[in-house]
Amino acid sequence: MMKRSENLDIYETITTRKSVREFQAKDVPEEVVARLLEAGRMAPSASNRQEWRFVVVRDLQERKALGEAACGQTFVSQAPVVIACCAETDDHRMACKQLCYPIDVAIAIDHITLCATAEGLGTCWIGAFDEDQVKQILGIPPEIHVVELLPVGYPADPSPAEKHRLPLARIVKYERWK
Amino acid sequence: MMKRSENLDIYETITTRKSVREFQAKDVPEEVVARLLEAGRMAPSASNRQEWRFVVVRDLQERKALGEAACGQTFVSQAPVVIACCAETDDHRMACKQLCYPIDVAIAIDHITLCATAEGLGTCWIGAFDEDQVKQILGIPPEIHVVELLPVGYPADPSPAEKHRLPLARIVKYERWK
Repeated sequence: MMKRSENLDIYETITTRKSVREFQAKDVPEEVVARLLEAGRMAPSASNRQEWRFVVVRDLQERKALGEAACGQTFVSQAPVVIACCAETDDHRMACKQLCYPIDVAIAIDHITLCATAEGLGTCWIGAFDEDQVKQILGIPPEIHVVELLPVGYPADPSPAEKHRLPLARIVKYERWK
Repeated sequence: MMKRSENLDIYETITTRKSVREFQAKDVPEEVVARLLEAGRMAPSASNRQEWRFVVVRDLQERKALGEAACGQTFVSQAPVVIACCAETDDHRMACKQLCYPIDVAIAIDHITLCATAEGLGTCWIGAFDEDQVKQILGIPPEIHVVELLPVGYPADPSPAEKHRLPLARIVKYERWK
């Protein structure tokens, strides 16, 4: 995988990443997008099923339509690149009866968002959208699931956001739940 | 967030990460586990709902029981730390009708696995387990979902694994699916 010259520690990357909803008009070079997708491709998946699929959208009309499909989140169309993150799956479930594909696609997307941060790019996980509408816009077959939309672009405001999170003591237990 | 002195680029981290199923007897220091959990805590989630919960297990008897609950993947108990990754959720769904919690817990776990790699640790996403059995072992209430088990330890074989992945052309489409 090609690497960016400027090193960003993984912890730093995680701390720096924020949800970006306003983008510069500046385009994202093709080779940068390729690096992000390659990072997604490296993700682990249940039984290495690799159910993730990505539709990379740059066309302005398509992006506008996606913005409208994203439940009023029209900022989506402002990003020069929108990746529709999908799953081509037989709806395989794990022993715990859980569907594999939402988790596996999420891992790939997380890789993409973290690498985007290291590239100086901003992203935003968009889970609120009309799936049928997105499928119609992008010609995605009925049997494919659209898991997230991911706008990718240079953030208008590059400053790190403050994260509001529950304290560790609220989310971590030791040895037993109770 | 405390940082590890040795810098590992995010791309490098993603390429280096592998599923580890054999661990050294060496323990994982508490402060390292704390850094991993902190990285999980920094994850984004739908509407910042932060539904992820973690039960950190070091007790050998509990680990053995978890290994047995993991559908024969007894290597799970070999790791000095096993994290039961759960969701405390009202089963909120996005506009696309998708459940939020599997994706949001997966993002947090991905942060943990990548930081573990940077710390020289190995992990393995375990989605195959008997959820009722895991809940019984760890005293997890019925309304909580167990999403993954995550063994964490120093890998017996620290060499990077070769990843077998579909080519980019198979998983990426441009502008439209078809």
